[in-house]
Amino acid sequence: MEKALFLAHEGARAGEVPIGALVLDEKGCLLSQAHNLVEKNHDASAHAEILALRDASRLLKTPRLTGCTLIVTLEPCIMCAASISHFRLHRLVYGAYDPKGGGVDHGPRLFQMAGCLHRPKEIISGFRETDSAHLLKQFFKAKR
Amino acid sequence: MEKALFLAHEGARAGEVPIGALVLDEKGCLLSQAHNLVEKNHDASAHAEILALRDASRLLKTPRLTGCTLIVTLEPCIMCAASISHFRLHRLVYGAYDPKGGGVDHGPRLFQMAGCLHRPKEIISGFRETDSAHLLKQFFKAKR
Repeated sequence: MEKALFLAHEGARAGEVPIGALVLDEKGCLLSQAHNLVEKNHDASAHAEILALRDASRLLKTPRLTGCTLIVTLEPCIMCAASISHFRLHRLVYGAYDPKGGGVDHGPRLFQMAGCLHRPKEIISGFRETDSAHLLKQFFKAKR
Repeated sequence: MEKALFLAHEGARAGEVPIGALVLDEKGCLLSQAHNLVEKNHDASAHAEILALRDASRLLKTPRLTGCTLIVTLEPCIMCAASISHFRLHRLVYGAYDPKGGGVDHGPRLFQMAGCLHRPKEIISGFRETDSAHLLKQFFKAKR
C-alpha cells in the first residue's frame, strides 16, 4: 500500500485524481502499477485499477488474473469492481472507503449481488484508510 | 446497428464473443468502432463498448463524450454501463437483452440507481434484438 500511495501522489502531481494501484502475482511479485490517467489519456475509463489490471494481463498473456492481488488506495467504483470480476482477481486490498462512488462496500455492493460471476476470495477494506483519504481531501481542497 | 452487427460478425470470426459497438457524434458521424478483443488483447476489460468509447474520446481529445451515442449489439454489462456513466454518453442504443450479465435493464439497473452520477438522456433497448441474440446463440452453440 505504501507503493500505491506513492503512485497516487505521483498522479496528483500530474493533475489526476490521486489514486494508485498495483497488481501482485500469487507469490507477491509486482506485475504492474498505475495511477489514474483520465485527463492525460482523454479516457474516462483510465482508472488506476483498470490500467494496472490490463498491464498485468498483458504481461501474463491471459485475460484472467487467477491468484493475483490488486492493491488500490480507494474503494473501486462500480466499473472497476466489475472489471475485477471480469479479470478473476483472487484478492482485493483497498484504502479509503468511497460512500458516494464505491461499488464494493457501497452502492450495489457488487460482489455481494446475486449472479455476480466472480468475487475475490479475500477483500481487505480500509487498509491505511486515513492516508488515502487525506491525500484525496488535500487534492480536492487545492482544486477548489 | 447494421454496422455494429457486422463488427460483431467480424469478432466471431476472430474467435471473440460476437459483440460490436460504435460511437457517433451529435451529428451522427462515426467516431469509432470495435468488437470484443478480450482474447486477442489478453484484456478482460476489452469489451467492444469500452474500446469504442476510448477511441472516440482519444479522437475528440476529451474523456467526456457529451452529445455522443453508443450503439452496441448486446445490453452492456455492469462494467460497460458504469463506463458509459463515466464517459457522460448522451444516448445508448443496444440490441439483445442480457438477463444474466446485463447492467442496464437487468442486475443493478445501473442508470436507475440512486446516486448514479450520469445516466444517458435516451436509452433504446432491444433494437434489432433478434439479430444480435441469434448471432450470440450461434457462436456459443458452435463453441460447445
